[in-house]
Amino acid sequence: MPTIVVDVMPKPELLDPQGKAVSGAFARLGVEGFSDVRIGKRFELTVEGEVTDEVLAEAKRIADEVLSNSVIEDVVGIEVAE
Amino acid sequence: MPTIVVDVMPKPELLDPQGKAVSGAFARLGVEGFSDVRIGKRFELTVEGEVTDEVLAEAKRIADEVLSNSVIEDVVGIEVAE
Repeated sequence: MPTIVVDVMPKPELLDPQGKAVSGAFARLGVEGFSDVRIGKRFELTVEGEVTDEVLAEAKRIADEVLSNSVIEDVVGIEVAE
Repeated sequence: MPTIVVDVMPKPELLDPQGKAVSGAFARLGVEGFSDVRIGKRFELTVEGEVTDEVLAEAKRIADEVLSNSVIEDVVGIEVAE
């Protein structure tokens, strides 16, 4: 069955403490080359049947209203994964 | 500066309680058409300078060793985001 992937990230202007913790760990582990880390969520929605325009529109609505908190997060991607 | 996106998901054979909670909420909210929801993490790594083969190899190493727990998670994607 097809899958729709929804990507949600914290708004850029917000501090991302988890991301800061990981980039701090990079320094301790001697990992170089990465100046910042931000952490968000990846949702995989299994679609019953075909992915129609209606299903995609519903996925967008769900992404905005259920899967993300529009005050602190942005939906940065909605795509059909094969 | 370029960004490398690392996607990490729970192993398919593992129960995903958070995903189950969201798909349960779908039913209560009258959302139809989606039989399952799985939730993972999306990391955005800001790269200092150009994305070279070495940087990509380091991102892969970090994804496996730092950003994911290979016992319960799979790295399902590493890509350069424009």
